[in-house]
Amino acid sequence: MPSTIIIIHPHRLQFAMAFSASLFYPSPNLSSTKMPPSPLLFRRPSSVSLPVRCSSAAASSSFDLRTYWTTLISQIEEALDAAVPVRYPESIHKAIRHVVLSPGAKRAPPIMCIASCELVGGLRSAAFPAACALEMVHAASLVHDDLPCMDASPLRRGHPSAHALFGVDMAILAGDALFPLAYQHIVTHTPSPDPVPLSIIPLVLTEIARAVGSTGMAAGQFLDLSGAAAGSEKEILQVLEKKFGEMAECSAVCGGLLGGASDQELEALRRYGRAVGVLYQLVDDVLMESNGGTGKMRSNASIVKAVGMDRSLELVEEVRAKAKKELDKFKDKYGEKVLPLYSFVDYAIERGFVVEGRGLEASSAAGASVGSSETFSKGD
Amino acid sequence: MPSTIIIIHPHRLQFAMAFSASLFYPSPNLSSTKMPPSPLLFRRPSSVSLPVRCSSAAASSSFDLRTYWTTLISQIEEALDAAVPVRYPESIHKAIRHVVLSPGAKRAPPIMCIASCELVGGLRSAAFPAACALEMVHAASLVHDDLPCMDASPLRRGHPSAHALFGVDMAILAGDALFPLAYQHIVTHTPSPDPVPLSIIPLVLTEIARAVGSTGMAAGQFLDLSGAAAGSEKEILQVLEKKFGEMAECSAVCGGLLGGASDQELEALRRYGRAVGVLYQLVDDVLMESNGGTGKMRSNASIVKAVGMDRSLELVEEVRAKAKKELDKFKDKYGEKVLPLYSFVDYAIERGFVVEGRGLEASSAAGASVGSSETFSKGD
Repeated sequence: MPSTIIIIHPHRLQFAMAFSASLFYPSPNLSSTKMPPSPLLFRRPSSVSLPVRCSSAAASSSFDLRTYWTTLISQIEEALDAAVPVRYPESIHKAIRHVVLSPGAKRAPPIMCIASCELVGGLRSAAFPAACALEMVHAASLVHDDLPCMDASPLRRGHPSAHALFGVDMAILAGDALFPLAYQHIVTHTPSPDPVPLSIIPLVLTEIARAVGSTGMAAGQFLDLSGAAAGSEKEILQVLEKKFGEMAECSAVCGGLLGGASDQELEALRRYGRAVGVLYQLVDDVLMESNGGTGKMRSNASIVKAVGMDRSLELVEEVRAKAKKELDKFKDKYGEKVLPLYSFVDYAIERGFVVEGRGLEASSAAGASVGSSETFSKGD
Repeated sequence: MPSTIIIIHPHRLQFAMAFSASLFYPSPNLSSTKMPPSPLLFRRPSSVSLPVRCSSAAASSSFDLRTYWTTLISQIEEALDAAVPVRYPESIHKAIRHVVLSPGAKRAPPIMCIASCELVGGLRSAAFPAACALEMVHAASLVHDDLPCMDASPLRRGHPSAHALFGVDMAILAGDALFPLAYQHIVTHTPSPDPVPLSIIPLVLTEIARAVGSTGMAAGQFLDLSGAAAGSEKEILQVLEKKFGEMAECSAVCGGLLGGASDQELEALRRYGRAVGVLYQLVDDVLMESNGGTGKMRSNASIVKAVGMDRSLELVEEVRAKAKKELDKFKDKYGEKVLPLYSFVDYAIERGFVVEGRGLEASSAAGASVGSSETFSKGD
């Protein structure tokens, strides 16, 4: 396949002019962005078109993803801080707080949840408890995935993993405790029956259970461990969907449920969320491969290693188009409210700025970046 | 303290004549009971009285605990079989099925749940899904507790532990998948809004989350790992309450909630359940110590090692009295419906027969006994 050489930064994929017009939020100030010392080269097939898919409404909007995102991160971390206080026995709660509140997290699942709720006209307060719970579940799954017997990751967001700091036993217990805490948090904090009808809460809980369970993220981790990530394109995409797409899908659906979305809207949010989760991981794989790094899967497999850069970029574009197609269905009814969700899609590829929470250790947050572009994925 | 020698069997504590009158269910046929080759001796203080506490109604009843229990076990295992089918990916579901359906389980949490529901006039069908979910959660906690970094138990009910059969990674994943499956099962299978009001289901889910969470069973496991089980009487009792009492407490409360118990009844069930959970473990410790075996806690600590046999037997009697005192509150209103719950208290000490599920592997169930009297505890 004929190909051309283009320039790419790990934090700012510059897909030539075709992409620059797709940024409907103001070009961010990149002063805080950790840029690599030199641009990397990789091959991109010239036959792959990267059309602009943003609506004109989006292009003229003053919506600022970075402000939206960083404001929400701060609110979410405040709520998480209150949700996991130090209590007896102290050590386990300190481990839990470390897992949930360590700096560098993007808080992507809760933000996806809140944006989806607000898209369909729901109140932020309706989605906020579930959003925090999603972050707890997300953090719990990361702690278990990092274990020596799983992905054997000694680092998480540039800091020692939970098991490296607290021991494998405590890391398992912290994860085990976070799952039920998340459920408890939703039941005790979601404002119900007004504005959230009583019947919605079990649906939200079931959606989370489905996502993390034996046919969801646990299945993804199993497939990764069993070597499926080193297989065919179909097998790798399946691992990506289970291991990385489920959390974003679940976050979007929970937000929709809490905001009062119709069944049809929920299904569109489901497909959109899954696509976005996979998209971030696909782009991460492309960046990782370009950067000479190692992948986030057990086998250090990546889509690029399996199908090559040309096909990987085609897949990026396919999945990006799929995500935007689902959002297009909301435009007429909800107008500019759909902008945050559009922006997540573009950010997956653009990575125009680094976003990360300060967590508990605000003083060390400045040095917390791992120099990675991980966002809506289990690498978060 | 003066003491006398009495004879005890691991499967049938024979506290001389004082106890024989406390059996208000017919003396069971012990043909299937695995008796030890020879009786064991241990010291019991002569000053400890073991009064009969059964009501006269109970004494005249034809209630047969063994029939009640074994019938329910069979129904519960049938429901669990349907609840955890083999689906894609097969290996993880096979591991989950092994964990939930291996032979030898007493199914004590679900039976406690169903008995508590029926006590207050609830339908069995109202409690059945939550009962099955409690068994899933119970099984999940056992799998994680057995891990090499936790209690390092190579065996569970006389069979290889899940991690020994499937690997540590798969055992962690199976546990992780079972917790959400349990929540999902309750939401999707509980008959609601009739007979179970919609508002009750979140309360049941929260109760389970509380029990398994960072102030419940996870705290118990943490305290055990951190050496509290080798401490003072107060510290050991705290480990027993968290590690073993929480599941029985939660089971009784969930049953009460699903059966329509009042707040006052729920609190009585809560105290009763917790006492029964601790009681079984206390008696297990006494039996284990008499048998020269090792305890179920990380440090192989036991109440007997910490406070001696005399004080241990006093504690057994105190906790037994506490459990029955709570049940006495139900007698006037519910009559014979309280008998199953009374019988669990007496069975904790009497162990008049061996009860265990056949699980999936019916052909191997006959040889599944571990020669232990474990029942309402994490040793189950």
